[in-house]
Amino acid sequence: MKIAYIIFNGINWLDLAGVYEPISILRSAGYRPDLQWDICSWTPEAADEGGLRVQPTLVGSDLGGYDAIIVPGGKGTRALQHDEGFLQWLRTAGPVPLKISVCTGSLLLGAAGFLQDKTATTHFKSYEALAPYCRSVSHERITEDGDCITAGAVTASIDLGLYLCRKWAGDEADVYIRHIMDYRG
Amino acid sequence: MKIAYIIFNGINWLDLAGVYEPISILRSAGYRPDLQWDICSWTPEAADEGGLRVQPTLVGSDLGGYDAIIVPGGKGTRALQHDEGFLQWLRTAGPVPLKISVCTGSLLLGAAGFLQDKTATTHFKSYEALAPYCRSVSHERITEDGDCITAGAVTASIDLGLYLCRKWAGDEADVYIRHIMDYRG
Repeated sequence: MKIAYIIFNGINWLDLAGVYEPISILRSAGYRPDLQWDICSWTPEAADEGGLRVQPTLVGSDLGGYDAIIVPGGKGTRALQHDEGFLQWLRTAGPVPLKISVCTGSLLLGAAGFLQDKTATTHFKSYEALAPYCRSVSHERITEDGDCITAGAVTASIDLGLYLCRKWAGDEADVYIRHIMDYRG
Repeated sequence: MKIAYIIFNGINWLDLAGVYEPISILRSAGYRPDLQWDICSWTPEAADEGGLRVQPTLVGSDLGGYDAIIVPGGKGTRALQHDEGFLQWLRTAGPVPLKISVCTGSLLLGAAGFLQDKTATTHFKSYEALAPYCRSVSHERITEDGDCITAGAVTASIDLGLYLCRKWAGDEADVYIRHIMDYRG
């Protein structure tokens, strides 16, 4: 089971960390020791507006071989949804059986064409921006439709991480990881 | 108003991102446009156990001139609390008026000597490890005592961030930022 976390300039780091942490515990606590992941970027570096800079483990590599891709949001999505170079790279994830987004990350899944005929969600301030990319916009915190799972604003990232833990390892994993993170959402 | 975020090998990224995000919005939404921060490390790189690697903006620089330092937790704290090189660097934060930690970051504040005669908290599984460093261990989610503010396990980082927003910009900032992050904790 191998995941690609997608990072980019203008990312929101809590969108990433919120889903990354429960999945990390899923592995370290032994529920899914087979889990692996890469930190994937189209550019050699990825920083947010505040200067927090993460180094990708892979740059521009084909995304087709993963079991899941996870796309966070952030202000950078507004430009990237029109960046053909980035979108062509993201489209290499076409064969991936689970395409997952947090917050405005769904604008990128949408711009890549993955949300056509799907119900999807995003940050509540971006419902209108998402609409042209999908069949219908959900106002739920997490929406699963076929091969796409999309989550709402920022802190929904944690709920998404726990949702994936439950999906991949069952209720007990969700309960334990929620407890160890002392999550009260 | 200038903050030093402390990063290190074995950090928990959600401990950092959870407090970093509300403070970032505090600036970008215009409540505290004077806010600045550095990402400070004792070593040239800082990665977690899962391979997520963040680049510090400053390495080994004196911490004495900041208005606040924020120290996340993570498994790396267990070794760092006995690393004299790291602790001597952290002790340069002595004059800083606010020494703040998330989760097991309080073990580092404690090992540096900042929690003597203080009430402090940490991850609920580390209450015993924190005890020798402080006057008393609190089981509250956030504990403020003099120049030290300590928070509990992982997701308490978000509550801490909102607590600091309220402290630095008032209730309205807290309410707005909680809303925009869609935080339900």
